[in-house]
Amino acid sequence: MNREDPELFGVSPNEGDVGISRTDRAHDTPGQRSTRWVEGYIVRSLLGSLGNPPIRITLWTGESICTAASSPVVDIRIRSFSCLLKLLINPELYFGDAYSTGLIEVDGDLVKLMEVTYQGLARMRDSGLRLRLTKWLNRRHSNALADSRENIHHHYDIGNEFYKLWLDRQLVYTCAYFSSPDITLEQAQIAKMDHVCRKIRLRPEESVVEAGCGWGALALHMATQYGARVKAFNISHEQIAYARERAHALGVEHRVEFIEDDYRNASGRFDAFMSVGMLEHVGPEYYRELRHVIDRCLDRSGRGLIHSIGRNRPNPLNAWVEKRIFPGAYPPSLREMLEVVEDWDFSVLDVENLRLHYALTLKHWLQRFENASSLVKEMYDERFVRAWRLYLAGSIASFSNGDMQLFQVLFTRGTNNDIPWTRAYLYDR
Amino acid sequence: MNREDPELFGVSPNEGDVGISRTDRAHDTPGQRSTRWVEGYIVRSLLGSLGNPPIRITLWTGESICTAASSPVVDIRIRSFSCLLKLLINPELYFGDAYSTGLIEVDGDLVKLMEVTYQGLARMRDSGLRLRLTKWLNRRHSNALADSRENIHHHYDIGNEFYKLWLDRQLVYTCAYFSSPDITLEQAQIAKMDHVCRKIRLRPEESVVEAGCGWGALALHMATQYGARVKAFNISHEQIAYARERAHALGVEHRVEFIEDDYRNASGRFDAFMSVGMLEHVGPEYYRELRHVIDRCLDRSGRGLIHSIGRNRPNPLNAWVEKRIFPGAYPPSLREMLEVVEDWDFSVLDVENLRLHYALTLKHWLQRFENASSLVKEMYDERFVRAWRLYLAGSIASFSNGDMQLFQVLFTRGTNNDIPWTRAYLYDR
Repeated sequence: MNREDPELFGVSPNEGDVGISRTDRAHDTPGQRSTRWVEGYIVRSLLGSLGNPPIRITLWTGESICTAASSPVVDIRIRSFSCLLKLLINPELYFGDAYSTGLIEVDGDLVKLMEVTYQGLARMRDSGLRLRLTKWLNRRHSNALADSRENIHHHYDIGNEFYKLWLDRQLVYTCAYFSSPDITLEQAQIAKMDHVCRKIRLRPEESVVEAGCGWGALALHMATQYGARVKAFNISHEQIAYARERAHALGVEHRVEFIEDDYRNASGRFDAFMSVGMLEHVGPEYYRELRHVIDRCLDRSGRGLIHSIGRNRPNPLNAWVEKRIFPGAYPPSLREMLEVVEDWDFSVLDVENLRLHYALTLKHWLQRFENASSLVKEMYDERFVRAWRLYLAGSIASFSNGDMQLFQVLFTRGTNNDIPWTRAYLYDR
Repeated sequence: MNREDPELFGVSPNEGDVGISRTDRAHDTPGQRSTRWVEGYIVRSLLGSLGNPPIRITLWTGESICTAASSPVVDIRIRSFSCLLKLLINPELYFGDAYSTGLIEVDGDLVKLMEVTYQGLARMRDSGLRLRLTKWLNRRHSNALADSRENIHHHYDIGNEFYKLWLDRQLVYTCAYFSSPDITLEQAQIAKMDHVCRKIRLRPEESVVEAGCGWGALALHMATQYGARVKAFNISHEQIAYARERAHALGVEHRVEFIEDDYRNASGRFDAFMSVGMLEHVGPEYYRELRHVIDRCLDRSGRGLIHSIGRNRPNPLNAWVEKRIFPGAYPPSLREMLEVVEDWDFSVLDVENLRLHYALTLKHWLQRFENASSLVKEMYDERFVRAWRLYLAGSIASFSNGDMQLFQVLFTRGTNNDIPWTRAYLYDR
């Protein structure tokens, strides 16, 4: 396709050179008129800034543009000029908003669309536009104590019934560990809980403090399967209520204490510190504080494990996900994560990157979500369904394309010699 | 023991308060006169700055001081006042020098002495003195291209015959991997080479660039055991000459090219980047440069492994080791190490800490060294024997006490999805 040919857009350059003032014509009925030069220019700019991925953009006029060298694998339909203009100004944020409201439609596989977008962006690494966007979208929500509660409430208190529709039976809302890719999601979540318990070599009657416990599955697993005594913190009211019910039903309420409070208020000394899927919500400006909490809580021979979404280098979270799905969230690079343990009396024993496990976990979630989408629509509305679909699909793409990582960092006191000789014990069956 | 009792030092405070000007009496014959107040004060200061470890210091006067709550496990004999004074000013550097020349004698286990010293220092973490010492000793040798050659020559060109006396048969001068603590050093060095080759999943006919190849054991192992094609860099003339001879003897000189040059001059594209025991000699100020070399050399689906001595937090190397044994060396913290791969298109897949393996490797080395010490003395002199004994013993203590770490960092391109599903393959037998 010759990108210089104005005929592609149905108008000659002069004819279409009308400027932004004509946005009053943005709501023209689709197909009513031919594409102006400016619209074609915007579409080409957008596709160019994404590294010209194999995406075809079809405008409200019915005309289609694709700047890729290969055939398009997915079609995007844009319904108005104002929508196109907002995409140009802030594509990362506005694509999600417009997709959610239906101003953008995707014909084809949404995951595939996100994947080719990430692949294109990877080729554009460090381009001016990317940096500009990054800066533009860099402002995160605060995670001071009060703000954390608001941020966490936004996501986790949507309603337990909603999460029950598409998570595993125990409601584990973090990356699973697929010892083999063909095991079920239920098996993989149990395997993940065993993997982290084995990493910290949890023994009967040992005490654990868990920072951010979700619906309590891991705390309950540590108590029922390893005989541990657990204090588990979470600031989500709905999750804690659910976790307490489960502890009661399992008869382990004397071994697992679910505390509706910020992990920063934890006190006492423990054999292990465990945090799975919480660091993303802490924010790097509070890592020092987290380190103090761990130091205060961890016994001399204590072990700690932090499991968190991460990046290969410092980068803000996708702006739409941060604003609409996870306010205040920031997945750190491994170097940033190590701020939690370094410059202190801690020694990193093991780091494992499980990003492909998160892509597979998310594929299971998306499939279950799609199966339940009519129920979700009844509970909320179509816009909610579309937003969550995009979030899950985009997350699959970001893990499978290496934009996001999943790090498990195991550490202990620097002077503790009661450490495993090799890691073979993790793989003994 | 009452630390306030001047009688312990055989003099009253006033009587002993003679000041530094009397160092002319430093060479008094041992036992000739009783200990002055100032000497007792210096000894107590020294022991205090080390956290009062169970060490007894016996002075040239014959009198002994121990400030520990428990019984001393080792005795140090100090032969003169000037020696004691230098210890006060710069204990880290001067202890090694004085031990080497025999001005300090150790009665008891040298490793034990170093261990209780590290344990004491760990209790003194972040004390004023420690920080002061750290700053004091912070100036490292430069690792610019020309300086690197000088620094490396200092250590590695002592003579292959020397290293043959106490390393394993293949002269692997880096941390071994003891799949079980009771295997031999020879077996553990082969296991280490297999461990790193399995980590990068080396396949037949793949190309590897090795930065810092020692006497060539790993390069030859990759060629003979994995069918790889290797370009191995080293700036030590003696090591490269030895490695070339071995390649010839093994008939793999067409598969392994030993290049007497700095790794920074490497060119070409490779399936894997391997560096075992070289980063310690690079210096953090050159990590960006190393990153550029790796990026230039590594193919799109390339894997890299960096194996290096490290620290739990940034800290200069023991001053005596840096000045007398390894000029220019700096073992980085894991965060510092990650500068080599972060902010670039690399993804960390796995980090393993093998510090107890290095303590055991060093124990094997020290035992073999002691068995050959009379030969070493013939080749060099007693001072050389004592310096190397101290270096090996001190290194055992620093790894077994958690002062030093051994990190293996495995990484690949951020977009490479040809990565192992789990790490179980490393432990299949």
